[in-house]
This record gives sequence, structure tokens and C-alpha cells, in this order.
Amino acid sequence: MEFPQYDVLIIGCGPAGLSAAVNVTIRNKKTVVYGGEFCSPKLSKAPHINNYLGFWDVSGEELRQKYLKHVEELGIKIEYNKIENIYPMGNSFNVVSKGNMLMCTAIVLAVGVQNPKYLPGEEELLGKGVGYCATCDGPLYKGKKVGVIGYSREAEEDVNFLADLAGEVVYLPLYEGLGNIKESVQVAKEKPKSLLGKEKLQALETEGETLELDGLFIIRETVPPAKLLPGLKIERNSIWVDRKLATNIKGVFAAGDCTGAPYQLAKAVGEGAIAGLSAVSYVDQLNKAEVKV
Amino acid sequence: MEFPQYDVLIIGCGPAGLSAAVNVTIRNKKTVVYGGEFCSPKLSKAPHINNYLGFWDVSGEELRQKYLKHVEELGIKIEYNKIENIYPMGNSFNVVSKGNMLMCTAIVLAVGVQNPKYLPGEEELLGKGVGYCATCDGPLYKGKKVGVIGYSREAEEDVNFLADLAGEVVYLPLYEGLGNIKESVQVAKEKPKSLLGKEKLQALETEGETLELDGLFIIRETVPPAKLLPGLKIERNSIWVDRKLATNIKGVFAAGDCTGAPYQLAKAVGEGAIAGLSAVSYVDQLNKAEVKV
Repeated sequence: MEFPQYDVLIIGCGPAGLSAAVNVTIRNKKTVVYGGEFCSPKLSKAPHINNYLGFWDVSGEELRQKYLKHVEELGIKIEYNKIENIYPMGNSFNVVSKGNMLMCTAIVLAVGVQNPKYLPGEEELLGKGVGYCATCDGPLYKGKKVGVIGYSREAEEDVNFLADLAGEVVYLPLYEGLGNIKESVQVAKEKPKSLLGKEKLQALETEGETLELDGLFIIRETVPPAKLLPGLKIERNSIWVDRKLATNIKGVFAAGDCTGAPYQLAKAVGEGAIAGLSAVSYVDQLNKAEVKV
Repeated sequence: MEFPQYDVLIIGCGPAGLSAAVNVTIRNKKTVVYGGEFCSPKLSKAPHINNYLGFWDVSGEELRQKYLKHVEELGIKIEYNKIENIYPMGNSFNVVSKGNMLMCTAIVLAVGVQNPKYLPGEEELLGKGVGYCATCDGPLYKGKKVGVIGYSREAEEDVNFLADLAGEVVYLPLYEGLGNIKESVQVAKEKPKSLLGKEKLQALETEGETLELDGLFIIRETVPPAKLLPGLKIERNSIWVDRKLATNIKGVFAAGDCTGAPYQLAKAVGEGAIAGLSAVSYVDQLNKAEVKV
């Protein structure tokens, strides 16, 4: 099976991600942008923007449209889909998104501010019965009892996928307006409190009860970058980068709000450009090295 | 005598300087931009710019006009004048520009790429008979023999100032089209080769002769930042900055091409915004500390 291959995968379709995409494309590298359903709700909601040089007294939505138009003019593809897992493979990455695979040489993380409130026990039990990717790890729980905590309606797809696979599924939706859930799923409208277990997950404690579980999936709108890429250096809640916007992981760059304050458009666009160009240099250097060998 | 006082002095009126000015002004800090006669000739000459997000297939001159308009809308003052000397004074800076003084709390250097070709002996003899600021050091040479090397017509003002002061002035213009030079000035149309002297300047060697001099002024279009601010950390020909765009000197920030590659508009504008906001934070912190005392 052939997977689509890209030079640079960009995660996030806000100003930083789009700026990276523009710069990568102009340098003739193959790229794709993965983003949420709606690119930059934060920008869209800004009533007046006065400090993005060249645009005076413009609304966030107006700028957002111009940004999307710019990207469209360059023929850049935006996939409105979530990246669920990244596997570093030496000089490239295998990336999973909703059950599909792609390969890329470099990655730009432009995922915006990430402040997930982890549940007590969550970080300790990750990979020990707790996971973020139902597509990836669901098959481990054939015939067993799993829980799913969903932060947005997106999670329902995972819930239904697991319903066909696991023996029993308990779903805790943390949003209003439940969608189309398979009948076999037991919906618990309780808030999760903490995860129990030492070497392995044993139960999820909610406000009302203690659910014994074999596995638990926690589906947030985006997977926290440090969970997508284990070992990614985080400093004061932001992704650590150097002046070239390189993270501590070879081939991975970051830009925009996810690298820290100031949370400003101009900073995001500027960093996106630098991160994109740094990713291009990285790809070029690898290609040169491979030709030599 | 009262000197004008600013919160943030911005040196350079290219994209980085203007972006800094916009951000400082929006945060209600008093600022002034010092720039060359023409803001960003480099931007003006770019035929097509495709990678400044939001503007697709725009000419450099078009963008330049939009940038200047933006700054004008905010009532930001641009002084088309050169900064000649900066004196750190604890929690503020005294700044000299063409014989005028101003005071400021913070500085943003946005001076563009700086690659001055120093003359052999120049760096060693700086402050030992060699200077960049005729207004500052001219009075030291009353009745003596001084030379002036001028890289642009701007230097003629300094030459005429020195003509009234020094005993003898030799002028080496390194540009085409000599302007209005006082009669007493001896114009030498020779290229300078090197500066002679050990503890003190003794002579200037040109292609044709050896001129014995008491003092020599070298007037480039801008004074290299490391000469304006002795002790400023330079790394690989660029001003060293941290992620907040702070230099190694307290209260001094830098942005744009002068901080190194990539030499891109989006980078300059982004860094200008960050440097401007960092300067604002610095001013606020100082003010808070002073109130406490």
C-alpha cells in the first residue's frame, strides 16, 4: 500500500500554519496542512486588528478570509482532520490521521495555545491502558470494557468505532448535544474525576461512581503536541524552540502561539515563515546527504 | 535644557521598525522612529512579494506604501535622521542625533543588514583618533587636521561642520556627485586603503598618498549597531537576541534583518511586533519598580 508522501506536514491552519505553508510552497516543497474544522476561530472572533503591519483597522474575519484566499491562490491543500499519532522513522515520520497514514520528512507544529487540563493519573497511566488514539490502540481491547471521554462531538466517531470492537463501551461526553451514538454504548453524563491504577489502569472515578475499565480513551479536540511526539521539550507550557524555530526533535519545527507569548498575529505569521523555511532547509540538507550516499 | 523623552526609541524605518512602532503605540507608549531618508529601499525594489500572509502577488512598493499609511494612521512620528551615539545612563539612554539629544527608556534596533567593510586599522583605532560622530567628537580637534571619509552625501553636513572648527579638513567622498562643500575643505578623490598608527591614529593611507591626520571621521549611512552600543553581542555578523528579541544589553531589543537570516518580510514584521511588546513590558516593569521606591 502506498501512502501519500510530503516534504513538510503542517499541523494547524491558523496564521502560523498558513504562513508556514505559503513559504514552504513558494520554495517548491510538497506540503499539506492539517487543521481543525474551522481555521482559527480565535482570529475570526477578533473585532478589530490594528497591529498586523499593512492592515489598518481590519476585522479578524476579514484577515482570515484574506489568509485563506492567499493559501488557495497557491494551491495549498488543507485537510480538515486531526493528527492522532506520529512515529519518527529515522529520517522521516509516519503519521496517522483518522485511520489514514501519510509520510513526511519534516513537520511544522502550529497548533495554537495548548493548555489541556490533564486528569489526575492521566499522564502516569498514558500507554498503560490510557490512550488518545482509538484507531491506533482500539484493537487491543477486543471484547473488553473501555471508556471514552469526549471533549467535542468529534469523539463520537471513535466511540462508534470502538462499539464494534470492544465488549462494552461507556461514553462520557463533556459537551452539550449528543449526536448519533450506537445503541450498545452506555452513555454516562458524569464528569470524570480521576484515573485509578498503578502499573495499569484499573478504573475511572467519576463524580457519581467508580467505573472499572480495561482501557480508556481521552479524545480532546487536538492531541497535545507532547503526546503526539513523546520527548518533545516543553517549557512553561509552550513548545521549546530555538531562533530557527527548531524544536528539540530533529525535523520538527514549531510556530505561533504554541511556542509561547506574545500571542500576536504578527508573531505567528513571522514564526510560521521562519519555521517553514527552516523545514525546507532541513529537507534540502537531507536530500543532499542522501544523494551523496 | 529639556530634551524630548520617549518610552521607546526605534532605530530603523523598514518593516521591523514600523511593526515595532505600531505595537508600541497601540500599547500607549510614547515612541519615535529614526530612519534613513527613504524607508526600506530594499522593500521598494522587490517586484513581487508572495509570502507575506494576506497579500498575494503584491509589489514591494505597494506594501511599503501600505506600511507607511498604517503608521501614519496611528500618528507615529518618523524622523529622517541618523542616530550617532547612544549613552546608557542606568535606567535610560541619552541619544545623540545630528547634534540634538533625546532620552528614552528602551531601544529597538531595526537597522537592517549591517555588513560594513571596516578599513584595516579602523576597529583598532576607534576612539583613538577615529570616530563616527563629528557632532560628538569634532570639538576635540579645534585647530587640528582631520580627515572625513563619506559613504553618502549625508556626510557633507559633517564636513562643513568640521570646516568651521578644525584647522584643516581633507574630505574623501566615496560616492558620485559632490554637493555643497565649503571652500576651505580639501577634497581628495582617492580611495582610502588603511589607517596607520598604534596607540593613536597617525595617518590615512590612500591609493595615492599618506595623509598625516590628527583625527578621522568615517561617516557611513548608518553607524554599525555594535559601535553605537559598545558591548552589544554580535554573533555571525548579526545582533544576538533571545526569544523575546532582547539583546545582551538591558533595555535594548532588536528585530528584523539585523538579527540574522531568513531575510524575510514576515520575519521582520513578526520580530518587530515581539521586540516592540518586549520593550513595552520592560518600560512597564521599570515604572512599577520606580513607583515602589
